[in-house]
Amino acid sequence: VIKKISSIGEQGLLRLIKKWTPSTKRVLKGPGDDTAVCRVGRKNSLQLLTMDTMVENVDFKLKTTDPKLIGRKALAINLSDIAAMGGIPRVAVVSLTMKPNTTLQFVKRFHIGLKRIANHYGVAIAGGDLSGGKELSVTIALLGEAAHNRVVYREGAGVGHLIVVTGVLGGSILKHHLTFDPRVKEGQFLSSCGVSSMIDISDGLLQDLGHLIGNKQYSCELDFERIPVSKDAIRLARGNRRRALRHALSDGEDFELLFTVSPKKIHDITKLWKRRFKTKLSVIGRVTKLSMGLNRLAAKKGFQHF
Amino acid sequence: VIKKISSIGEQGLLRLIKKWTPSTKRVLKGPGDDTAVCRVGRKNSLQLLTMDTMVENVDFKLKTTDPKLIGRKALAINLSDIAAMGGIPRVAVVSLTMKPNTTLQFVKRFHIGLKRIANHYGVAIAGGDLSGGKELSVTIALLGEAAHNRVVYREGAGVGHLIVVTGVLGGSILKHHLTFDPRVKEGQFLSSCGVSSMIDISDGLLQDLGHLIGNKQYSCELDFERIPVSKDAIRLARGNRRRALRHALSDGEDFELLFTVSPKKIHDITKLWKRRFKTKLSVIGRVTKLSMGLNRLAAKKGFQHF
Repeated sequence: VIKKISSIGEQGLLRLIKKWTPSTKRVLKGPGDDTAVCRVGRKNSLQLLTMDTMVENVDFKLKTTDPKLIGRKALAINLSDIAAMGGIPRVAVVSLTMKPNTTLQFVKRFHIGLKRIANHYGVAIAGGDLSGGKELSVTIALLGEAAHNRVVYREGAGVGHLIVVTGVLGGSILKHHLTFDPRVKEGQFLSSCGVSSMIDISDGLLQDLGHLIGNKQYSCELDFERIPVSKDAIRLARGNRRRALRHALSDGEDFELLFTVSPKKIHDITKLWKRRFKTKLSVIGRVTKLSMGLNRLAAKKGFQHF
Repeated sequence: VIKKISSIGEQGLLRLIKKWTPSTKRVLKGPGDDTAVCRVGRKNSLQLLTMDTMVENVDFKLKTTDPKLIGRKALAINLSDIAAMGGIPRVAVVSLTMKPNTTLQFVKRFHIGLKRIANHYGVAIAGGDLSGGKELSVTIALLGEAAHNRVVYREGAGVGHLIVVTGVLGGSILKHHLTFDPRVKEGQFLSSCGVSSMIDISDGLLQDLGHLIGNKQYSCELDFERIPVSKDAIRLARGNRRRALRHALSDGEDFELLFTVSPKKIHDITKLWKRRFKTKLSVIGRVTKLSMGLNRLAAKKGFQHF
């Protein structure tokens, strides 16, 4: 028998969700009160707060996506934002808007995927909200704190700084956008190394590069030969190298870290990186003075919601 | 000319929203980076984190509601949750899911309403997310901190404790659900007085009373003569007192505070309350030992999303 959420009601569903997301030490009060109560941050520390929404048919197809991967991605995209600040993720609240005929099985699998990635990254699910609507949407707010009492912002790049990216790029639509590993430890490491600016690639390399250097009217040189093109980008481009590169430059949802760093630091970073992480690290370009065509190029590429 | 959000794109809209929600001192980084960066909480303090979603046609009618009131309510319902813990609201992030044909005018008025209530309660709008969807929905996550290093939970009531409610109840559908003042200062005051349990009435007095005393298998006696019935409840009931009382007992979205307190404290609380607040305070009943019919009654009344 396929059970619908309408058959057990909001309170019944809430009881199940409480069971699926037990409290942790950091959370003095989890789901079931007016707010979550938690302890985040040591003395004088900074809090990081981020929020992302996923909507059915925009961010995932309900019919063809395992609900576990929807729950996973809903938290992963927020983890990636905390990673891009060099922060430590701590506590999340989850708002789920569902059609009344949503199955209990869906909600359960969603929470299994959510809980698994939350556990892996040490995040407590501390509460949230349930609503009814015409389409499925999930919003997660994630509270974290600055590691090393230092935050890496989007601005901060200087002329001559190297442009570096983690992992491989492009073709995430095939699978990576649902299964990617947010670069949380990597972000904390890069923050401790004193990189000058950082962002996670969600809108596509070129557009997000525009966010890093666009505000200051800098430009950049990119070495297209050194852009790390993913196998999925090559697959999407059916082996055409030029098209594969275009995927790597413009596809959204890579969720790799893109950062700038002073050239004198890159040697040490690369050496330490290889000892700690298996993920690739590629120097792909350099920040330059003159504002050239990049900003307009970046503005035209990548994903826009409207 | 009526401008649609699709005409200026996501980045254009983000620039406008940044202008409408300027940063404050507590927020080191507002909208426009991967996460918001803020400083919430003194040494050893506890953070409160809450989240609420409003969906078009469920929580408001788009055609007949001033967008300012939608922005206002989206934050107000979260403020009410922080109030019910006795906390101080600090920083909010806002996720807005909109149809592509949403007007710029709508988004602007929404933010005017949001900003006005945020300013009034000292809350910084620090970021959020924009998405496209089939229906309008707003999710706000609000981060606060415990006042007096003390949090009032839903459990905590004891046998013999008085049941007390602020303001007047029922008929909120006429207007109050959009224009109510969250009882934030009142909640902080009650927390400092050592009330034993507290909740804000969002699902209706009886259902929320069930949340306060239901878990412990307590019951209660209510004095129906002392339930503070609102003028709107009487209006809805066309003057029929019994029907008006039913509205006061069961209507959702009063957003008044419902709390329990040891009888020996009520005299001082009432005296201090009158000096500080104009809002009414009504002792409406008493927590009793035996589990009677209340829980089942409460479960059947009030608003359910599914």
